[in-house]
Amino acid sequence: MKTPERGLLLVVSGPSGSGKGTVLEALFKRRAGLFYSVSATTRAPRPGEVSGEQYYFLSKETFEQEITRGNMLEYARYCDNYYGSPRGPVEEKRAQGLDVILEIEVQGAMKVRHNCSDATLVFIMPPSIEELAKRLRGRGTESEEVVRKRLETSKAEVQTAGAYDYIVLNDEVGRAAHDVDCIITAEKLRSQRYVGGFLG
Amino acid sequence: MKTPERGLLLVVSGPSGSGKGTVLEALFKRRAGLFYSVSATTRAPRPGEVSGEQYYFLSKETFEQEITRGNMLEYARYCDNYYGSPRGPVEEKRAQGLDVILEIEVQGAMKVRHNCSDATLVFIMPPSIEELAKRLRGRGTESEEVVRKRLETSKAEVQTAGAYDYIVLNDEVGRAAHDVDCIITAEKLRSQRYVGGFLG
Repeated sequence: MKTPERGLLLVVSGPSGSGKGTVLEALFKRRAGLFYSVSATTRAPRPGEVSGEQYYFLSKETFEQEITRGNMLEYARYCDNYYGSPRGPVEEKRAQGLDVILEIEVQGAMKVRHNCSDATLVFIMPPSIEELAKRLRGRGTESEEVVRKRLETSKAEVQTAGAYDYIVLNDEVGRAAHDVDCIITAEKLRSQRYVGGFLG
Repeated sequence: MKTPERGLLLVVSGPSGSGKGTVLEALFKRRAGLFYSVSATTRAPRPGEVSGEQYYFLSKETFEQEITRGNMLEYARYCDNYYGSPRGPVEEKRAQGLDVILEIEVQGAMKVRHNCSDATLVFIMPPSIEELAKRLRGRGTESEEVVRKRLETSKAEVQTAGAYDYIVLNDEVGRAAHDVDCIITAEKLRSQRYVGGFLG
């Protein structure tokens, strides 16, 4: 009876050290029907990497063609390689009723908003500057100068949170994952999306 | 550290037989921090009724004064008596951080939208016409003609669901209550409402 409901596109972003990856890991454990969007890149695959798993590995020509055709929800260039979010697999999974999770950097999130008007944007907020500094330093892999630069970038990125639909404070991973879970449930109940009984 | 966050105003409505009352009962059992808004009326209290509990009992003069002052979020007149939702207690509870639930008829819900721009409107959808008819007949208190008239009204009211923010299908009370619970959690995470860490 029920038409298969088109899935959401949930963009999850936040500054380095916000813990967005950990929140998403917890979310995937508690909720079914999600699909984690795979990025495309022009960098060469490392040993063991398979196209469509870690990345879609594309030639530079193909990637640029896809940009021209409007098939990249967002992209950026780092170290002479392109990285981006291909629209095709996202729309395919949504048509199957899966909710697609796109974990990307803050700069990319605003581009997705522009290129996909019905995307839902979630900002993962670190609990405080002190905690953010602790997390960035805790990795122990970067010099104090790099950590300080990252902190400055993160502070600037936090200022963009108001442009997202939702802000989830990541002071406790389980609660933050529960919050994102509720956001998905609620967004699917928005009247514009209703295809269920009676009116469907 | 955290500013006390202003509570939501959640308007819960739906046709007769949608089961909105039962859904709200289940919601109050699973969620804290809610306040059930009490209506005002000019009808005389019945034995045992206390002003501020079942209703705020007002004189006709006071009620009309409150209308003139814009202090009624919505009101209607039945059988020569006024019934309405006073704004004062709603705003008072919201300022204390409580989420106020306003269970009202479909006609009233659209008036609240007009009079309170940050209200969140939830439509409780009966699962089907057949089930709705069964529920209305199941009460066993009304003639077939009255039941048929109610059904017609309910069908017309269902057509207004698209004007609400959210539509919750009440095919199973527990799930419907969980849905409303998630809507409240998600609405409180909307970036416009954010007053928490970092940006707060």
